[in-house]
Amino acid sequence: MTIINRRQLAMGFASGVAASMLPTTFAGASDVSIQSESKELIWNEVFPGIWKATLGTPEAHTPVNSRLIAPAVDRFKALPALSSPAIEAINGEVTDRGCIVRLPLKPNERIYGFGLQLLSFGQRGKKKTIRVNADPKLDTGDSHAPVPFYVSTLGYGVLVDSSRHADFYCGDARPKPTNPKAHQSSAVNTPEETEKLSMDERGEVTVEVPHAGGVDVYLFGGPSILNAVQRYNLFSGGGVVPPAWGLGFWYRAEGHGTQQSVAALAREFRDRKIPCDVLGLEPGWQSHAYSCSFVWDEGRFPNPDAFLKNVSEMEFKVNLWEHAFTHPTSPIFDPLLPYSGDYGVWGGLVPDFAGAPARKVFGDYHGRTLIDAGISGFKIDECDGSDYTGGWSFPDMSRFPSGIDGEQMHGIFGLRYQHAIWQQFLDRKQPTYNLVRSSGALAAPYPFVLYSDLYDHRQFVRGLVNAGFSGLLWCPEVRDAKSEEDLLRRLQTVVFSPLAMINAWYIKNPPWKQMDRKKNNADQLADNWQALEARCREIIGWRMQLVPYLLSAFERYAADGTPPFRALVLDYPNEPALAIVDDQYMIGDRMMVAPLFAGEADRKIVLPPGTWHDFWTGKVVEGGNTLSVAAGYEKIPVFVKAGSVMPIAAIGASAASPESRQLTVQVYGDGSLPWHLGGEPGRHMELSWSATEHRGKVSQSGSGTGNFNALRWKQMG
Amino acid sequence: MTIINRRQLAMGFASGVAASMLPTTFAGASDVSIQSESKELIWNEVFPGIWKATLGTPEAHTPVNSRLIAPAVDRFKALPALSSPAIEAINGEVTDRGCIVRLPLKPNERIYGFGLQLLSFGQRGKKKTIRVNADPKLDTGDSHAPVPFYVSTLGYGVLVDSSRHADFYCGDARPKPTNPKAHQSSAVNTPEETEKLSMDERGEVTVEVPHAGGVDVYLFGGPSILNAVQRYNLFSGGGVVPPAWGLGFWYRAEGHGTQQSVAALAREFRDRKIPCDVLGLEPGWQSHAYSCSFVWDEGRFPNPDAFLKNVSEMEFKVNLWEHAFTHPTSPIFDPLLPYSGDYGVWGGLVPDFAGAPARKVFGDYHGRTLIDAGISGFKIDECDGSDYTGGWSFPDMSRFPSGIDGEQMHGIFGLRYQHAIWQQFLDRKQPTYNLVRSSGALAAPYPFVLYSDLYDHRQFVRGLVNAGFSGLLWCPEVRDAKSEEDLLRRLQTVVFSPLAMINAWYIKNPPWKQMDRKKNNADQLADNWQALEARCREIIGWRMQLVPYLLSAFERYAADGTPPFRALVLDYPNEPALAIVDDQYMIGDRMMVAPLFAGEADRKIVLPPGTWHDFWTGKVVEGGNTLSVAAGYEKIPVFVKAGSVMPIAAIGASAASPESRQLTVQVYGDGSLPWHLGGEPGRHMELSWSATEHRGKVSQSGSGTGNFNALRWKQMG
Repeated sequence: MTIINRRQLAMGFASGVAASMLPTTFAGASDVSIQSESKELIWNEVFPGIWKATLGTPEAHTPVNSRLIAPAVDRFKALPALSSPAIEAINGEVTDRGCIVRLPLKPNERIYGFGLQLLSFGQRGKKKTIRVNADPKLDTGDSHAPVPFYVSTLGYGVLVDSSRHADFYCGDARPKPTNPKAHQSSAVNTPEETEKLSMDERGEVTVEVPHAGGVDVYLFGGPSILNAVQRYNLFSGGGVVPPAWGLGFWYRAEGHGTQQSVAALAREFRDRKIPCDVLGLEPGWQSHAYSCSFVWDEGRFPNPDAFLKNVSEMEFKVNLWEHAFTHPTSPIFDPLLPYSGDYGVWGGLVPDFAGAPARKVFGDYHGRTLIDAGISGFKIDECDGSDYTGGWSFPDMSRFPSGIDGEQMHGIFGLRYQHAIWQQFLDRKQPTYNLVRSSGALAAPYPFVLYSDLYDHRQFVRGLVNAGFSGLLWCPEVRDAKSEEDLLRRLQTVVFSPLAMINAWYIKNPPWKQMDRKKNNADQLADNWQALEARCREIIGWRMQLVPYLLSAFERYAADGTPPFRALVLDYPNEPALAIVDDQYMIGDRMMVAPLFAGEADRKIVLPPGTWHDFWTGKVVEGGNTLSVAAGYEKIPVFVKAGSVMPIAAIGASAASPESRQLTVQVYGDGSLPWHLGGEPGRHMELSWSATEHRGKVSQSGSGTGNFNALRWKQMG
Repeated sequence: MTIINRRQLAMGFASGVAASMLPTTFAGASDVSIQSESKELIWNEVFPGIWKATLGTPEAHTPVNSRLIAPAVDRFKALPALSSPAIEAINGEVTDRGCIVRLPLKPNERIYGFGLQLLSFGQRGKKKTIRVNADPKLDTGDSHAPVPFYVSTLGYGVLVDSSRHADFYCGDARPKPTNPKAHQSSAVNTPEETEKLSMDERGEVTVEVPHAGGVDVYLFGGPSILNAVQRYNLFSGGGVVPPAWGLGFWYRAEGHGTQQSVAALAREFRDRKIPCDVLGLEPGWQSHAYSCSFVWDEGRFPNPDAFLKNVSEMEFKVNLWEHAFTHPTSPIFDPLLPYSGDYGVWGGLVPDFAGAPARKVFGDYHGRTLIDAGISGFKIDECDGSDYTGGWSFPDMSRFPSGIDGEQMHGIFGLRYQHAIWQQFLDRKQPTYNLVRSSGALAAPYPFVLYSDLYDHRQFVRGLVNAGFSGLLWCPEVRDAKSEEDLLRRLQTVVFSPLAMINAWYIKNPPWKQMDRKKNNADQLADNWQALEARCREIIGWRMQLVPYLLSAFERYAADGTPPFRALVLDYPNEPALAIVDDQYMIGDRMMVAPLFAGEADRKIVLPPGTWHDFWTGKVVEGGNTLSVAAGYEKIPVFVKAGSVMPIAAIGASAASPESRQLTVQVYGDGSLPWHLGGEPGRHMELSWSATEHRGKVSQSGSGTGNFNALRWKQMG
């Protein structure tokens, strides 16, 4: 087979072939192969249970090749030892378009992942393109945080190490038929019926990476699907553990708020006993927002130090909105100029976050002028590449001083931007927790939670469930709500998520005072708004009660890579009924949540095997079947495993309040599942229960601020 | 500047560089340029008023390089002579990603085009990707029929001759700012406000073609924007002239219909005096539809010859639904096997329509077994590459024996499929008119009209308006309607379109008998359906009356490239109010249509300068301003220019009926715009009116079946 690369023929000027030697037309060249031959790729174990196979010459700038956080090598021992890769050798070829990798699929094997997917759950039978895009309206793979990683129900995960717009054909691209006899007469007569065949067949995940002359493929072994996700997260560096205040409640104030109006709002939260840890400031804090100056606006915030002191005394942290595109009036414009891309956005620079110099200029300024002044974190917006909105991002053909192009930069911009910010907190040994619009591969250790406002409640929940397959965290933020019910349902979900926030950037008063935007901003409050406020206060209180349990779930994320929020299929891979459940999820090792959606009078809940308790009442519910639950207004359906010992904090003004350290220990059933906290040095607490003695036991050491006290024990059901 | 192509370094095995000579990592190579330098490209005149500039080594398979229809060289003389290209020299560069072309934009210059765009009209400030996709939900360029061609209000058009997924950045990608002083303080503080600046600035259309080592750019001169479109259409081969029956009325029967049920439906149309020219058969006519056998189903159509004879005697033509993916049971499976792509769709072959052998095998079979049996044309479906629907198309990485890949094949599949079919009619010198789901560049001469069912009425109209910029025809077919009003509004629009059709593939009875799908298929007819039928009959009658006028509009399409259906900005480029009108359009040289949309009580109509008449009443309306028109139920707003002489046919059973040849000549105002028909040899008719004598004159020659008789003259207004 003659290997001819048409692209190189065309580029004769660079390959040393004289132009005159080229055929003037390729029209007659139909018998010439324009591909290299497909080769078997060899797995090499690079970490315990992680194998790597290399095709051609991989690019220098990929998620793994340019990683900034090392794998959590010391923690792989937490996972089962494996002797061989879960899938046999794979094939690959380098072509004139880029390169192709082919991985086998078995009959009835299911795959999940690809990062923050909002529009679908199971991925077999689909094509997914790994393209950062703020406006995914079709199920194409486009997402704020797409990740070239998937996991299989057969207990392995695959990372194709590229920052490019790789296409993953998940069993939907099938070779042409060659044998007419094998297909004689069939009832199949619609495209849908044809598709149904694919699950039962053997198949292939075919991945095409554009422009790249090679690629590394990483295989993460199980033996279970959850183990594969854990291994990927440990390879990424292990999961993040947020500070307790990050797991409290967040509220973002209206975008044009002043230091007076925001301080008044803070006061109102304290006066009306609405718990809150973090106040977010939206674009108006800056002197120029599109693009960003990163400088306080003198009109709205004439004295930021006084403002920060004021709200800090009320136990609030402050989080600042921004994006990376740097306005000419910014103090960092000049030093960033040589370390930015050749295209601009909104008249601002695009920092070359792939390179250390841009991260340092950008980060140092943030550390010196904002973090040192008391800012606890950032909401980093607009890094999710909405290049079809018209001028909202840089083109794929952009070039950056670090040597990458715009396509690659889109793939890493979110995570490298996070790094520029996070490094400043690391340097200061200061815990932080932040919001971000875009992320990518190997993100588990980063103290950032994804957010966006573009989705309905059901999509928000699906995003939360999917994010756990790929080391991502997702905040289904409460913003627009269509009705009082919708507001409450969304709030009920968000308090059972990685970051509990109301984003009220477009309304002056909290949404419970007036849901209509115009009236809200005209201070025309709803009649009897206090009733709705009371319901919201109660739901926000649930969040504060949950902080200790969430902390333990995150500690396990760090220790062994178990995602704190995750799909049921990860814990129960052998239950067919759970393989398609994208509207329920596990939190930690013992809690399952099944959100309710506005306008739905009831919902079906698929309960995993085993005995469960209603979290609120303690009532026993036998698992392994499907319940139909009437949608009560007061609670969100939450279940805990029989035996659970659950630490429930008292509700204070914030997670820093003394009340938040006082626990009621709820014991479900025989209390055979003790609860444990202690990932952090100097913090250790174990709550266990003796069913025979009907007595709880606290084992505790350390005296950090993270310590909790078990005040009372309560048997549930 | 050192020119190093990173991709070629990576592909050292093919370029003759030993692998051992390659750097093992590129991480330190950030100071090495990975682009070639940008070069000025030189315009060379290739046809009168058409210039070509070449960058690098263009690909062999492009719309122009592999064209099958020659330019209409003899007709360029109909257009103004030009001495120099309308835009100065352009720049381009070949990169490791493909190649880039840069074309200047002046302040306030507007651009339109890119084929069948459904979601936007003016394109400046946007990014458009030329990607065939059946499910465009975002305004990304994706379309059934995207075309890498745009026209400018400054009177020129640009074709970037590629079948690939080229990205057109239409002034939205802007270089990074470099001078902080030039941007000191500004009120701009939202992304929307930043965007507004772009229209007033100089700018650039930047086009990136992936994978290609070069590309040809064609510049079509005006001097007017309409002239540029005309020149593009003549370069394409000149516009199509459909047979009169193609411009009559079409009806597609339910997909599971039998030869008895379809014949009964045909009889019903005749009995109830609903005009109809073409009956369409949907998937059920075939023995296997997904993929296609192209063989009659023995159960539903045991005797196709008898069926065709029967409906032909009732003056019906028959059109057959199909797609190209070829089932193993098809008689052409074996001969197509060597001329098909390496991937299959729905278990069928993907014919390599880029090559003559596949077109011949596929076309000859259709000619021999279907066209010779009396089939008048086809509805060719599923060629629009919905590769995200899951197995609905072939992957971009497919390879075809002709040497092109799947990405290129998606770009040309629709048009080359059309050619395979059309060639059979050409060989038989038999006029035809067809439906197709996908098309592309240089499509003007093809007797195919685009259709789809995915849009709302307003999008349908926008598609109709946009299609005229790029040599395309679009049928806003009537199918689903939400209400009686919606049905009537859609029908009112479709009879003023290139192809007037009701597509009732999912209902047994015509929609006027029952709009509810379930009830319709259960033969539960609406009360008093005869009233709705009467209204539909009247509207369909309008179409039959319009056939002679439409024929003359199409004749001009062939003669000088003027699109028969087109945006107002083409005729009135200097009227700012018309530059954004995407819901009104011109038909021919004197008629303007402003459709009404269900649920809207009135509409604004922007009337171009000059004096106009209401088409229906003759009432004079002064142009150059905006009217607000109450949405009457009985008519669709249609205007004709003062002086228009309009041929209005009598309404027969079909366009072949003797009635359809009898004209009432409607004279508006002074009758100073005579009407002319005569593009076809042996057919010549001119209707002129003398205002002073109040008398019409007919000048006629030839005696073909296309001849009309002017029976009476009627002064309107």
